[in-house]
Formats: sequence, structure tokens, C-alpha cells
Amino acid sequence: MNKTIEVRNPRTGKFDYVIIPPPPKLLSQQCHRLRRGQIAWEEIGIKGRIAVLQQWKQAILAERQNLTDALVNDTGRLSVSVLEIDSVINSIDRWCNLAPQLLQPTAKNTSIPFIALQQAAVPYTLVGVISPWNFPFFLSNIDTIPALLAGCAVIVKPSEITPRFVAPLMTATNTVPLLRDVLNFVEGGGETGATLIEAVDSICFTGSVKTGRMVGESAAKNFIPAFLELGGKDPAIVLESADLDLATSAILWGSVVNTGQSCLSIERIYVAEQIFAEFYHLLITKAHSLKLAYPTVEDGEIGPIITENQAAIIKEHLQDAIDKGATIHCGGKVEELGGGWWCRPTVITNVNHSMKIMTEETFGPIMPIMSFATIEEAINLANDSIYGLSGAIFSESIELALQIGMQIDVGGISINDAGLTSMIQEGEKNSFKFSGLGGSRMGAASLQRFLRKKAFLIKTNTNKDPWWFSEE
Amino acid sequence: MNKTIEVRNPRTGKFDYVIIPPPPKLLSQQCHRLRRGQIAWEEIGIKGRIAVLQQWKQAILAERQNLTDALVNDTGRLSVSVLEIDSVINSIDRWCNLAPQLLQPTAKNTSIPFIALQQAAVPYTLVGVISPWNFPFFLSNIDTIPALLAGCAVIVKPSEITPRFVAPLMTATNTVPLLRDVLNFVEGGGETGATLIEAVDSICFTGSVKTGRMVGESAAKNFIPAFLELGGKDPAIVLESADLDLATSAILWGSVVNTGQSCLSIERIYVAEQIFAEFYHLLITKAHSLKLAYPTVEDGEIGPIITENQAAIIKEHLQDAIDKGATIHCGGKVEELGGGWWCRPTVITNVNHSMKIMTEETFGPIMPIMSFATIEEAINLANDSIYGLSGAIFSESIELALQIGMQIDVGGISINDAGLTSMIQEGEKNSFKFSGLGGSRMGAASLQRFLRKKAFLIKTNTNKDPWWFSEE
Repeated sequence: MNKTIEVRNPRTGKFDYVIIPPPPKLLSQQCHRLRRGQIAWEEIGIKGRIAVLQQWKQAILAERQNLTDALVNDTGRLSVSVLEIDSVINSIDRWCNLAPQLLQPTAKNTSIPFIALQQAAVPYTLVGVISPWNFPFFLSNIDTIPALLAGCAVIVKPSEITPRFVAPLMTATNTVPLLRDVLNFVEGGGETGATLIEAVDSICFTGSVKTGRMVGESAAKNFIPAFLELGGKDPAIVLESADLDLATSAILWGSVVNTGQSCLSIERIYVAEQIFAEFYHLLITKAHSLKLAYPTVEDGEIGPIITENQAAIIKEHLQDAIDKGATIHCGGKVEELGGGWWCRPTVITNVNHSMKIMTEETFGPIMPIMSFATIEEAINLANDSIYGLSGAIFSESIELALQIGMQIDVGGISINDAGLTSMIQEGEKNSFKFSGLGGSRMGAASLQRFLRKKAFLIKTNTNKDPWWFSEE
Repeated sequence: MNKTIEVRNPRTGKFDYVIIPPPPKLLSQQCHRLRRGQIAWEEIGIKGRIAVLQQWKQAILAERQNLTDALVNDTGRLSVSVLEIDSVINSIDRWCNLAPQLLQPTAKNTSIPFIALQQAAVPYTLVGVISPWNFPFFLSNIDTIPALLAGCAVIVKPSEITPRFVAPLMTATNTVPLLRDVLNFVEGGGETGATLIEAVDSICFTGSVKTGRMVGESAAKNFIPAFLELGGKDPAIVLESADLDLATSAILWGSVVNTGQSCLSIERIYVAEQIFAEFYHLLITKAHSLKLAYPTVEDGEIGPIITENQAAIIKEHLQDAIDKGATIHCGGKVEELGGGWWCRPTVITNVNHSMKIMTEETFGPIMPIMSFATIEEAINLANDSIYGLSGAIFSESIELALQIGMQIDVGGISINDAGLTSMIQEGEKNSFKFSGLGGSRMGAASLQRFLRKKAFLIKTNTNKDPWWFSEE
């Protein structure tokens, strides 16, 4: 433990940053400090917490340039970094608006006239968040913001692959007195994450299926709830009636945004055979219009592949597809430029489910396309996966799209668009299969999962007998 | 595996019943059969399922006498067996009334004017239920009924200690064609339970903390949600202002009903010092009025201790308290009568938290009482426990009771009554500490935890660009 971790720069390939994970004892002290802070945090009530989070928002905005610079160094891309910051700011406002109503105690009737019910809720004292490298800033805060408003203290361990944003974020956080007592970001790798799970009262994890399952088992051993948001292999289904211009633009965006490094990116495309050729030709044309964000971060739309490990996976999936007879129409290789790893938008046909590119999470700007003859076939192909995160359907008839969507084993479905479920936070959704476990991080459930419900059952009549006796 | 299990009769001590757990292969085949049945079960919709559950209710009522007889042999007590059957019947009606609204798909707006949200829900295909011996019929159905109405198939493994009710219940179930395809009760012990967890999509467990933690870890390994309802050591707090007649009657009932063999029974009593003597004298007087249900099941109110193991625990806790200086005012010993184990309502003073009787789950008709000087002291005593299931507060001021209740780390609080949270199903509550984990089995949440939420996000304008592009 307490070894330094060297951090690679995705644009240069150089290890130009270092983090020092806290020794377990220090981490444990920090958790105690947060627990102490949580008492006052809960006591100031939702209005007080909203005021503090609004101060935090201003502090983040004041650090915006430093945060952006750090995120660019972490991830090698600019526009998505800007989008991440905007999304966190919007998320703070959105939850500040929603939280008061969600935290309101409610009075209800029961089936017994003289027993009244009052419902209240108690936050978990300390919530842990372990977040990934693909959207380092946004995903380290997506669970943190509702947990804070619920009244919890939060300790976050962002990925050791993209930790540079933590310093400016802590600068911002430390200017907000009450918040710094209940929110901390710690640097570290897997060992720090494992230690953290043992110190918290509930754990949110976003990342791979493999690590997520370990987190789930560790949470069960520690008898705390785990909220796991894991991988995906999201399918898009394009019906014959679809608007092809819209479908190709949306699928292209949904596949290549953040260089495909999104769990909710489209990774498999199934197109009605009648429009298959037209669809993929149009997609290729549009794919050609996108450029690498190279040599400078202001160039083009497609940033570098953030990790060397992911570059190797994309390469492996492409080679496996080629070996098994796939046809690459554009992109199709992982190239080194200036020390970073890059991949252009890649359209592939002649693919099938014997290939990794159709079954394993690729996490790259890859668009493998198969045709289907019947809707039933499309549904079967979409469901032929160990994943069940989300998907997209393109159809002239919304009703038909809904019918198909009900038969696809995923939690979120965009209709006539792609990846909406990652950006529009209102829709409550659960993950299917190996894509996750635990409450939804979207919709009101996202805040409510940090509360334990408390039921007060009050005898309201003046009868001297308890209810049981009066029943008989 | 496939060894027979001999079953003891709690009134005679004789092993007069045998069950044969299914071999794992047969259990697996049964699960496959239920999964196949679930397809039609989901397709018939909520109206169809309600009609089937109403048939089941009639079939249970037709088997009422056989069920009662079996439950009396399982548990040695009559009136609670009758109550169990009534409760299941009421629960069927209650959920049939509530379910249609809870399963209604909803349409909502999003923050983007041209993105519409539709919410739907998909049941887990096969839910497993592992239920305990203290309320064998009620607790094997408390999760089963909402899960069935949600659209799941259900496989139940009741405790091997009280399995006699399964035969008449299956007789009833098998008269209902669609239901028998989606509901099965299997006989067996821990090994059968462990096999079952590997065959289902979510698991409900009611029982001990020790086994519950194993179930939780096994569920995490199998990547399925676990709903754990475990032990308790429920405190009652009696303030100076309390109505003593009411408080003593309610606490007596809440402690000794089902011979204390209820996870929600009152196991610790804290009384304001000003009324301490008056309180316990009155409690002793009322305790004396209760008789053993012996020699016949129609006698008295207090049935036998159902398991020999539990009799040994009660004995151990009493001896430990006596050794450490406790004063027994009535009851106070575990006695053998006609081959069964019995314990009369027992009032104890001069107890403290060094004694097992105040800290470990006793599961007997035992009422240990301590006095407190301040409300803060009462709260600290109530919270000095590894358990956090529920509790009771007696106070003239409801407002003060609510204030105190908010500071006690339990999910359900009865005010001026005891054990209400076990009988009134409207109040959503979560367990604290080691008393449980996972969604609430009370309130609407009880049905909703068997559904995975699905969000459809629909682009409703005719713009050819996806939302992402139109934003920029």
C-alpha cells in the first residue's frame, strides 16, 4: 500500500502525473471525519444543503478552466470535457429542484381507521462512490450529488487512470466550509477502492462487469447495499420504415461520441435487409466527415483512446472480426499518433455473433452492422448478449418501437434517437443481466436509494386496549 | 443430498413427519418448468393474474381445515395458525386491489420539450423465497403474493422445521391451472435453499442474521438481488406520560404473542424511572393472567417453543441473566411438558446490557425491563444493539414520540401500541444494521422490488437531426 501510481497521458503516452494513495489508516480517519461532519449535514436540512450545493456550483464554475485543463490531460479530449462540466452543473441544479419534494415526510392512512401512518426517511451516513475513467468528472458526481442532498456524507474514489481533475475539484470543494466536512475525493487504485468499501454504509460503483461483481460480493460480505452500473453492448435496431438520415446521424453519434468510451454507446447495429445497403453507405459517408482531434485538442471530434489496455481490446476485436471474414469500410485500425492511441469511426459489415466485436464490450468508435429479415430475428439478435444496459430503435411507428422495446432485455430504450438514456436523467431504469444491479441512478429513485424508509404507526384513538385486543 | 429429513412435533417432541428434499436435478427441472409458465403468466396481464389469485384464495379457503391442522402440528399453537391463514387471505385481497395501479405504465415529460418519457416495468422471471418456521404459512407467502401479481413465477422453500402445511397448500394450489405452472413449494433444508439461490433471478429470505448473510453473499456471487429480513431485538420505550394500562397490555401482547417467536416482538423494555415500579407490577399481574396452551391446543394463549434449539437459547439467556443478578418476577424457566418445551410469560428486572437477554435475540416470551432517567439515556439504550428492525414508544405526546422515534435506528416504530409494523402492511420501512438489507417488504415497494424499471425516451419532433446535434 501507499505506493505511488504513475498516470499516463492519453495524448502523449507519457507518464507525466503521479498519485499517492492514502494509507488505509489515513483513509479510515478521513471516513471518521466525514461521519462526524454528516451529523451537522443532516441537521441543516434540505434547504441548508441546497444552499451549500449552490455554493459548490459557484466554486466549480470558478475553477472551470483548471478543471477543463485537468480533464483534457486526463482524457485527451476537449468538447466532452466541457460537456462533463456542464452536465455536473445542470445535475446540481436539477437535484436541488427535485430534492425538497422527495425528502418531504408524508402522512398516510392505513387499513385500520385508528392507526395513522407517517413516513420519514433516514440517509445512510457515509456513501462510497467508485467511478471510472471514461467520464471522470461526470461519473464521479452522478451518484454524489443526490447522495449529498439526501443527507449523506460521500467519499469518492475516481479512477487512478484519470485523477488529474481531483486537485482542482478539491480546491473548489474546500472553499465551501460545510461541504468539505462531508465530501472527499481520494486518489488510489483497486486496493484503495477495496478498503473504501469496508468503511462505508453503501457503495456506488460504475465500471467493468468483472470489478463490479467483486464490489457486489465485497458489499455483501460487509452487509451494505451496492449499486452497480456496469458494462453494455447496446444494440440499435433500424426498421425498414426508419428515417435513414436521422438514424445514421443518431447512431453515428451514439457510437463514436467520446470515441465510443461510453457504457451506453451503440456497439451493435441491426438493420432491416430492405434498407441495409442504403443505411451503411450513408453511415460510411457520415463517418468520413468526422476527424481525429489531432494534432491539437481543438481539431476534429474523435479523441484518443484513453487507456492502452482499451486500445489493445479494440485492436483484438477488430482483428478477430477480420480473421472471421468481416469487411471494414472505413477506419478499422488502432494507430499510434504522437504517443497516443487513436481509432477513426469504423463501419463494418459481414459480421456475426461468433465475433467478439458483436458480443464483447469494445468501448471504441466501432459500428458493426448486420441485416435482419424479420422483427423477431432483430429482437433475438438484440437479446443474444450477456449485457442488458440500453438500446435504440428507429421506426416510423412509435407504437411498434415500444412493442419491440418491451421485448428487449435492457433498462433504457431511445426511440428515434440514440444514447438518450445517458443524458436525460428523468427515466428510471434498471440494468438487466450483467449490466448492473441495485436501484436506478436515474429518476427519483436515484436519490431515494440513499434513504432508509421509516414507518411510524400511531394509535390515534383513546381506547385503553391495544389494537390486537380490540380486533378480537 | 436427497436424504430424508425427520420433523419434530413441538407439542410431543416426537419426530412424526418426514420430508424428502428434491435432488438438485429435479429442483432445476422444476425451475425450468416455472420459467416456461411465467411467459403466459406475464402475458395474461394483471387482470388475469388477479382472477387466478382469487381462485387460489377460494382454494385455500376450501383447504382451510387441513391447513389449520397442519399448521397446528407444525407449530403447536392454534389461534396464531388461524391468524396466519386470515392474514394470507387478507394479503391476497389487499395486493389484488393495489397491484393494477402499481403496474400501470406511466407517461412523463422530460427536461427536453421534444423528448417524451414512458415508464414500464418488467418482472423478474423467477423469484425464490426462503421462509422461516415461526409463521410458516404467512411468511412463506408475504413475498410470494406481490411477486406473483408483479408477474413473476415463484419458488418457495419453507423451513424444514415446519413443513407440514406445504401438502395442503399444494393441494389447493394444484387446483388452479395457471397458478400451478408458476408457483411451487419445495421441501428441504439448507442445501436445498443454497441450490435454489443458484436457480432464481432474485431471492427473498426471512430468517437469522447468520444465514441471511450467507444468502446475501451467495446472491452477490450469482449476481441477483437479495431481500433479507433478519433478526431483531426490538426495544419498547415507555415515557413517564404514557398510559400504563395501555402500555402494559400492548407490550405484553407484543412480547409474548406466538410465544415471542416473532422477529418483531418486543425483547427489551425501557421505562421512565418515575413509573418503573408501577409499570412492572402491572405487567406482572397481566402476565399471570396468560396460560399455557396445554394440555390441549385449545387451552391458554402461550404455545410451545417450536424448536429445541430455540428452547436451549431461551434457557441460556435466562440463566445468563440470573447468573449476573437479574430478578425473575414470573415465568423464568423453560420446562418440558408432554415432550414439548414451554416457557411462561417472564418479567425480569435488575437487567443490564452485559446480559444476553438484553443484547441477543431471545425469541421467547421474555420481558426484561430497565429504568431510564432521561430520554437521551432511553435512546442510547435502544440504539445499543446490533439490530435495527423496529420498536415501540409509549407517550402522551405523539410529537415527542415521533422525535424520539426519528433518533432510534430502526425501520418501523409503533406509537402507543406494539408490533403494529408486523401487521399493518402500508408502511414502507427498511431494516437498519444487521436486521436486513434490500427493498422494503411493506408498502408499495414490496411489489415494486420484483420489477425492473424500463425507460423509453422518445424523440417526438420531426427534426432530422438527433437531439445531440440540435443542442449545439
